[in-house]
Parts: sequence; structure tokens; C-alpha cells
Amino acid sequence: MRTFEIKRHVEYYEADTTGKLSLPMILNWAVLASKKQSDTLGVGPKSYMSRGLGWVILQYEVDIVRRPEINEEITIKTFAAKYNPFFVSRPFTFFDSQGHEIIHVKSIWTMIDIDNRRMARLPQDIVDAYQAERVKQIPRIAKPTAVGVDEVFEEKSYHVRYLDIDANKHVNNSKYFEWMQDVLSPNFLSTHEITYLNLKYEAEVRLGHMVQSQVVLQDNFSKHRIMVDDVVNAEAEFKWRHTTI
Amino acid sequence: MRTFEIKRHVEYYEADTTGKLSLPMILNWAVLASKKQSDTLGVGPKSYMSRGLGWVILQYEVDIVRRPEINEEITIKTFAAKYNPFFVSRPFTFFDSQGHEIIHVKSIWTMIDIDNRRMARLPQDIVDAYQAERVKQIPRIAKPTAVGVDEVFEEKSYHVRYLDIDANKHVNNSKYFEWMQDVLSPNFLSTHEITYLNLKYEAEVRLGHMVQSQVVLQDNFSKHRIMVDDVVNAEAEFKWRHTTI
Repeated sequence: MRTFEIKRHVEYYEADTTGKLSLPMILNWAVLASKKQSDTLGVGPKSYMSRGLGWVILQYEVDIVRRPEINEEITIKTFAAKYNPFFVSRPFTFFDSQGHEIIHVKSIWTMIDIDNRRMARLPQDIVDAYQAERVKQIPRIAKPTAVGVDEVFEEKSYHVRYLDIDANKHVNNSKYFEWMQDVLSPNFLSTHEITYLNLKYEAEVRLGHMVQSQVVLQDNFSKHRIMVDDVVNAEAEFKWRHTTI
Repeated sequence: MRTFEIKRHVEYYEADTTGKLSLPMILNWAVLASKKQSDTLGVGPKSYMSRGLGWVILQYEVDIVRRPEINEEITIKTFAAKYNPFFVSRPFTFFDSQGHEIIHVKSIWTMIDIDNRRMARLPQDIVDAYQAERVKQIPRIAKPTAVGVDEVFEEKSYHVRYLDIDANKHVNNSKYFEWMQDVLSPNFLSTHEITYLNLKYEAEVRLGHMVQSQVVLQDNFSKHRIMVDDVVNAEAEFKWRHTTI
């Protein structure tokens, strides 16, 4: 099992109004660490795009002790943990400059055929490069608790913007967190800090789509759903703690 | 005159669908260079916030030879060029790893009283730290060509989002570029590359505002306006060149 790490410095434009690393940036940094490991091991984009394949994230589970502040230096460690023919599990651990673990991310990835967007078998030479452990069943992440059929939810509409699309021609994964967070009230967000999230992607959102970000908030627990028309594109649950200002 | 430089590596989440550094990130990196110079010279946030002051950008003019691609290493050089009691002009030059100048930014800054948001006289010890040249009149940047009173424009509405607000509790300057770019059609954006922009801020946009991004596009020239109700919050002109795909 080959571990890999990157160091990042929190810049002002990566922080939200609290002065701490924004929720989408946590995920961008995790993905960055895995991309850089893939490049280093010689199994980066050239290796899989030439075969018409691409990596896709299916689910994230994130435990947050604290989000780092502007100017903090953070180390992100990762490795491809376990794989079977179709899935890889990969953890990411964020450490502060004192070596304290402040964020832990679990993630599940698969590969798809770029043309038909269907799941593809993982090429053996690619998984071999990471020295991941082959298993029958990779460790599952529980499904996020769904918004109930009869539950009353709040919602806001978001037009998918030109800059939501990245060089892969798809909506950057981290944008879902922006839509999910933004639907909560500024008053709630300014008095609550996120401690946990579990997000499962179901279908791809595309440029020009209008998404509905729906939320049910009960005390320190929020259930989220991203809809395009009647299709669920992602579901998530977030846990929060009240902060004293 | 004290020059300063930072190095940045273009990461995947800083690029748009073209695989090149996004327009908002160009401005974020420029501002980052000036922030880091201020910190290095001991005239960072602690120095001016303790006096109830804050820096505000009034206008940008940007010439773009080319935007850097993912994984390029870029050096950004800057210095506080000239000042008078109320304004500072500051250039930023982006160099690629071969030392070619690929982006040049001119900018005009002022300081405001944080409480009443009115322009403040620049503290002498702060401008002294940069060793800027004192002048009567700082070099002006022409006003962007305005949308004419009778001109027909396209427009889209944008709700100011929680993550548009940065740690200064105001809309991050770079968000205006996102609204201005997004109102253009994906077809136009996929066939045109920006070569020049001139943006002048007029009034502050706040959380909860609904902004109208208006545009008049004529060949390779677009005129932009950001409105909140009937107030002009920013005006800009962009120049484009047609790209062969």
C-alpha cells in the first residue's frame, strides 16, 4: 500500500466568510492529493484516458474536528486502500502543522467508460500501481438518510454555471456542496459549524441544467437532495454543532 | 520601490472547462501576491484593521497573451507603483516557466473606513513600507465603454451565495467575473478566448442581493454591467479572439 501526501496552505480565496477552508475546497484538496499520487505513480490521465476511461467518485463521508484557517499549512495523506474489480476505497487524512488530525475523508471511486458513461472494470495495471489490497467487498459507507416522501423541505434553484464545469467537461464534484450549503440560511450557517457529512452521487448534472437543492433541517442534522426535474442527482446528510460567537 | 513575487501551480479546480486558469482565479492570484507582500512588509491586516481600515480595489485592466494550463508553474510579480493621498496603482505580471510574460494586470486601490465604507486617506507608514513613488495624480485607467442607454442587452439573474462572501464579509471581487462570463453563451465561450478586460467597481454587492448581469456582445467585444435593482455595481468591457478548435 503506497501512501502519498501533499501540503497545502489555506489562501484567502479558499476560505468562506468564517475565515476557514470552505467545504468545497476540502473535497478539492482531497481529490488533488489522489490526482498527484496517480501522476507520481505513472497512472495519471494519460494512462486511463488513452483507454477511454475516467475516474468517478461515488460517495464521500467526512468527519471534521475543525476546518483549518487562512494561512494554516495542512498536510493531506492518502492511499488507495482496497479494491475489487469495480470499486476502490480511498481515505484522506488532513493534519495541521502540529500533526493533529483535523479532517478525515472516506471515499469510494469507480471507473467509467467516457463515451457511454457506464461503469468499467478497473485495469489491473492501474490498481497494481497503488499496491491496494484486493478484497471481495470494499468497505461500504452507509447511505445518507434520505428525505422522507412526506417530509416538508426548503428548496432553492441553481442554474449550472459555465465555471461549475471543469476540464473533464462535467460539473466539479465540489459544487454539490456549494448548492447544499447555500440552501441553509445565513443565520444558521453563521451559528453552526459542520462536523460530519455523507454524500452519495446518483446521477450527473450537466451545463444548462437547473438543479433544485432541497433540505430538511432538524436541530443539528440536515438531510439534502439535489434534483434535476424528478431525478435525484445526489443525496447527503450533514451534522452540525452550534458555535458560540 | 519594493518588488515581490509568488509562485503558483495551476491545479485542476482552478481551471475552467478549457483546462486553463479561470478568469476569477487570475484576479485571486493577483490579490494574493499583494496580500503576501503586505504581510512580508509588516503592513498586513493587523496593521490596517486595527485602525478600522481596509483595502478596496476600484478598477482592473488585464491584458492576456494566454491563460496558463493545468500543471503550469507561474510566477506573479508585483509592486506598489505610485500613490497619492487616496489611491495606489499596482501592476501584476504573470510569467510562465520560460520567463514569458503571459498576463499583465493594472489595478487601482484605495482604503476605506470599515465602519462607514467611505474612502480614507492612506496612512503614510503603510505606503512608505512599499516604497511607492508619490505622485500628484496616479496613472488613470480609462473607464470601460458603457452599455448605451438604448442598447439591447442580454441578462441573467444571480443570487449572491453564501460562498461568494469571503472572510472580509463582502463579495469576493472575482465573483463579478463569474457573473459577467456566465451570461455569455456556452457556444460563444467554447469558441472564444479572452484577450483583454477592464472592470470598474462602482458599488458593493451584498449577501442576499439578486444581481442582474447584463451584456451587449458585438463580434469580439462585450460590454458588461452588474446591476442591483437600478444601481450599477460594476461595469466592464472584455475583448475576445476567435479560437480554432
